[in-house]
Amino acid sequence: MGVNEIKALIDQLSKKKIDMYHKDFFLTWEKSRDEIDATFLVADVLRSMREANISPKVWDTGIAVSNFRDNSTRTRFSFASAADLLGLYVQDLDEGKSQIAHGETVRETANMISFLSEAIGIRDDMYLGEGDKYQREVAKSLDDGVAAGVLPDRPTVVNLQSDIDHPTQSMADFLHLAHYFGGVDKLKGKKIAMTWAYSPSYGKPLSVPQGIIGLASRFGMEISLAHPEGYDLIPEVVELSKKQAAASGGSFKHTNSMDEAFKDADIVYPKSWAPYDVMLQRVPLLHAGNQGGLKDLEKSCLANNARFKDWECTEEKMKLTKGGKALYMHCLPADITDVSCAAGEVAATVFDRYRDDTYREASYKPYIIAAMILLGKRKDPAATLRALLERKQIREVM
Amino acid sequence: MGVNEIKALIDQLSKKKIDMYHKDFFLTWEKSRDEIDATFLVADVLRSMREANISPKVWDTGIAVSNFRDNSTRTRFSFASAADLLGLYVQDLDEGKSQIAHGETVRETANMISFLSEAIGIRDDMYLGEGDKYQREVAKSLDDGVAAGVLPDRPTVVNLQSDIDHPTQSMADFLHLAHYFGGVDKLKGKKIAMTWAYSPSYGKPLSVPQGIIGLASRFGMEISLAHPEGYDLIPEVVELSKKQAAASGGSFKHTNSMDEAFKDADIVYPKSWAPYDVMLQRVPLLHAGNQGGLKDLEKSCLANNARFKDWECTEEKMKLTKGGKALYMHCLPADITDVSCAAGEVAATVFDRYRDDTYREASYKPYIIAAMILLGKRKDPAATLRALLERKQIREVM
Amino acid sequence: MGVNEIKALIDQLSKKKIDMYHKDFFLTWEKSRDEIDATFLVADVLRSMREANISPKVWDTGIAVSNFRDNSTRTRFSFASAADLLGLYVQDLDEGKSQIAHGETVRETANMISFLSEAIGIRDDMYLGEGDKYQREVAKSLDDGVAAGVLPDRPTVVNLQSDIDHPTQSMADFLHLAHYFGGVDKLKGKKIAMTWAYSPSYGKPLSVPQGIIGLASRFGMEISLAHPEGYDLIPEVVELSKKQAAASGGSFKHTNSMDEAFKDADIVYPKSWAPYDVMLQRVPLLHAGNQGGLKDLEKSCLANNARFKDWECTEEKMKLTKGGKALYMHCLPADITDVSCAAGEVAATVFDRYRDDTYREASYKPYIIAAMILLGKRKDPAATLRALLERKQIREVM
Repeated sequence: MGVNEIKALIDQLSKKKIDMYHKDFFLTWEKSRDEIDATFLVADVLRSMREANISPKVWDTGIAVSNFRDNSTRTRFSFASAADLLGLYVQDLDEGKSQIAHGETVRETANMISFLSEAIGIRDDMYLGEGDKYQREVAKSLDDGVAAGVLPDRPTVVNLQSDIDHPTQSMADFLHLAHYFGGVDKLKGKKIAMTWAYSPSYGKPLSVPQGIIGLASRFGMEISLAHPEGYDLIPEVVELSKKQAAASGGSFKHTNSMDEAFKDADIVYPKSWAPYDVMLQRVPLLHAGNQGGLKDLEKSCLANNARFKDWECTEEKMKLTKGGKALYMHCLPADITDVSCAAGEVAATVFDRYRDDTYREASYKPYIIAAMILLGKRKDPAATLRALLERKQIREVM
Repeated sequence: MGVNEIKALIDQLSKKKIDMYHKDFFLTWEKSRDEIDATFLVADVLRSMREANISPKVWDTGIAVSNFRDNSTRTRFSFASAADLLGLYVQDLDEGKSQIAHGETVRETANMISFLSEAIGIRDDMYLGEGDKYQREVAKSLDDGVAAGVLPDRPTVVNLQSDIDHPTQSMADFLHLAHYFGGVDKLKGKKIAMTWAYSPSYGKPLSVPQGIIGLASRFGMEISLAHPEGYDLIPEVVELSKKQAAASGGSFKHTNSMDEAFKDADIVYPKSWAPYDVMLQRVPLLHAGNQGGLKDLEKSCLANNARFKDWECTEEKMKLTKGGKALYMHCLPADITDVSCAAGEVAATVFDRYRDDTYREASYKPYIIAAMILLGKRKDPAATLRALLERKQIREVM
Repeated sequence: MGVNEIKALIDQLSKKKIDMYHKDFFLTWEKSRDEIDATFLVADVLRSMREANISPKVWDTGIAVSNFRDNSTRTRFSFASAADLLGLYVQDLDEGKSQIAHGETVRETANMISFLSEAIGIRDDMYLGEGDKYQREVAKSLDDGVAAGVLPDRPTVVNLQSDIDHPTQSMADFLHLAHYFGGVDKLKGKKIAMTWAYSPSYGKPLSVPQGIIGLASRFGMEISLAHPEGYDLIPEVVELSKKQAAASGGSFKHTNSMDEAFKDADIVYPKSWAPYDVMLQRVPLLHAGNQGGLKDLEKSCLANNARFKDWECTEEKMKLTKGGKALYMHCLPADITDVSCAAGEVAATVFDRYRDDTYREASYKPYIIAAMILLGKRKDPAATLRALLERKQIREVM
């Protein structure tokens, strides 16, 4: 993409009505359609600048804090790549996985790590009712720190996965779709099947499917959410998605049949998650440190899962989709039958055919994260991007 | 602060007689008053430059080594922020906590990590008689490496807490006081109460109170050191502080009464530490790996602590201070009664009132560390700072 | 070294016939003599630029991935220093030591960590038959990612030690030799003794001695490889080294006598390694997770080692070398008798005399790694280096 095309994207951005400055990115449904589109535009601009060897380095020095309360390789690399692209050094805050800090400790730590920080990325998805709450506590502490004159500027908080939403994943997924179909506006009327799939593992968070239906419902898409009985998502998120789907001129179907969801779908997203009830039961057990109870819960949950091994994205299932050619999506890593496990979410031949698509899907995440940071830190992001373009600093000496 | 005010600070700096180039920062009392003041000035200049969006990045590339032999979140972030502010990439040297390396190993490692390094920050505060010794061994190895032509330049060593002093903490504390009272010279005659306080935890190092009395005694302050019987500090540090207090036109009182110390104080610093005897007894037990002995020692120590639960910074105690309005200080985290523990160092209402002050106190640490690095690496630091000002490189694109 | 001398080195570089662009650095014997020499030249240029305060920062932003499947302090610092020198931020990929990933997992991870990455350094030396294979799998995955349009550019893979070769070590060693003797061409005819030495430890990889004979045999040197019976290296590497020695006008002797190897040597490299048979036996035991079998193997191996305690680089042995003044080399850390162990690879007085030489030897590694990265990423590296010189960006503000 040439400089003039990048300028055209920035012109589009400057027309969006957004209020993201000194705000955080927790849930996509808290953002207006213009704010969603602005995030896509900034991500595209940053990627295009980098690929045109124009440095998008906003900061000469500065810290980006990463706080992973759950394991992550991919998101860790995405966050580090995003921070580095903007010129920030990543300093990891390792609080340990088991600890649930609240109140005074959160307030103090949030300030102590932020004196020279521009962004804080948090992954906290293990406890239903906790992750999003914790992130907002950090954000509130930062507001207080700025108000008290303790912090020179407000770092922006980016949700790298909570118990409710996984916006860096869903936004990357939909930027991928926008490029695949030729524009965000082309998503209108497309059918997307967000379906549960069998996996031999346990306790996968609900935030990916919730994030997908919560965002798909903004674009007038025909959404089909399918899962076996008992594998519900947080009811409020499903309700909200239904309303959003209607408001955006799309539809929302909730079914217990994978076939029904796949029927004539343009896009399929078969992915395992834990049953909502089990996630609810886990919380008091985790809080109580009841290891025996957790083990028992896991055992019964896996036994229950095994009843639904036919929830697999096979070649037969793919034939049900539009022209047999729906786009397969996954947040990765997928449980691939006969590859990563004996029986899993997807057949090896299906995954093989779409492997590069899933890799491309993932490639948008660093740019989405960078866009979220930039938008949280700049009142006039279009002006900043124009200044970067005019600076003409090369990213690499050839 | 505008560019002209920053220039005025640099002019002040250039009048100080200092000999810090290719030296290290181990103990404040090894530094002259001019060197102490120069460190404050450089810290203020760096902070003002950053806040005026002028990049204080001295290095385009280069490594800062962090070596934490004890846990730390705050100091880790302060060191990373300081290094990044100057343009250095932090590489952690993780030798493990339990190991006490000496001789050949220290010499070799010190050289191996320093080929492209500019600074080395070390925290080693767990063993009385070890931390400072280890830091000097590293420094000596670096001198040898430079003399032998192995190292292209001498990295500067910054003491991030030893068994004797905690200069990045105490210097940040006093830079805070200088700003609070309107100048370092305003500290003369102010009464500071450095007092022990009850905490349900065990084995806190002596380096903070030692650092405070060792530095307060340079400014002509009226120092009152108070602790229960048996909670002495290293005797040599107390003796030295007395002499320094007299020499600087201040005074030094050593008492076993918290009330007496608080009486008419301008500043109070109530903070727990382990008894000197216990710290002495720990060393051979730690060396011998005597876990049973250490457990017994801890138990008896905690039982002894519990006799002094009334050593708490309550509202009543605060009323004893000058106008009831002394400035409360703490290196954080504080043990707050009914918040972080049932009975602790400070009452919740007192801490609440001064929370933002303690956060502001902490905010100086990254700049103090950056100043120590710069002063150890530049023969004419004023010239470097002027060159940075003239370069007019912005820190962030707005 | 002045700018004109640096330009002269770049001119030499531009005359070398090399094909290293978008390739990796796995084994020195896969590289032509011109490619070896080009790597030395780039390393020297980068070092000279840094020492002349000219920034060799090629990248404004970008990621260098480090993947250490075995512990390392020195190589970790060398890689970080090299990456930082070129402007890259190091993000560690911590997969854990025990895991042997292949196939789909390697392919996916290689792509996921590479969207904004320029280089990947891998240390994987614990399993015979695995390390090199794994590195090539990563490289193949990256080729596929570029071909599929998933990756914007091909990151270059640098072998930071495999089961077969340790090229960053051997190349640093020989750049040290080139500087010590006054040029790479001065190595012709010099005798180098690569000998086994006793160590009380177990399971040291074969890659260092293999790397040394595999590289020494390119320069027309007289190589003497000596070890006790049973301590063979991978036979193919020894055979290849013999052929290379003959082709380059040198010689290769394989003996079971340390004295014979030391006789009239210009250079001695006494260093412990595990017996080839033991390394072979370890692999199935490791794969099977047979801890008992591994313990037994270690016990018998250490008992066998103890028969060869006289394989020590003593003062007496050094007297056998040319004029008693051969250059002692070691990759460090060495097992020094009476210093790091009761009986080890080298006598304390010998090591003392050559300590600074071994440190200097190590000092070339960051530059060798940086050179490997640059050569894998630039079609015309001489042009890049000239552009860096012309840019005249200073590395540090003085």
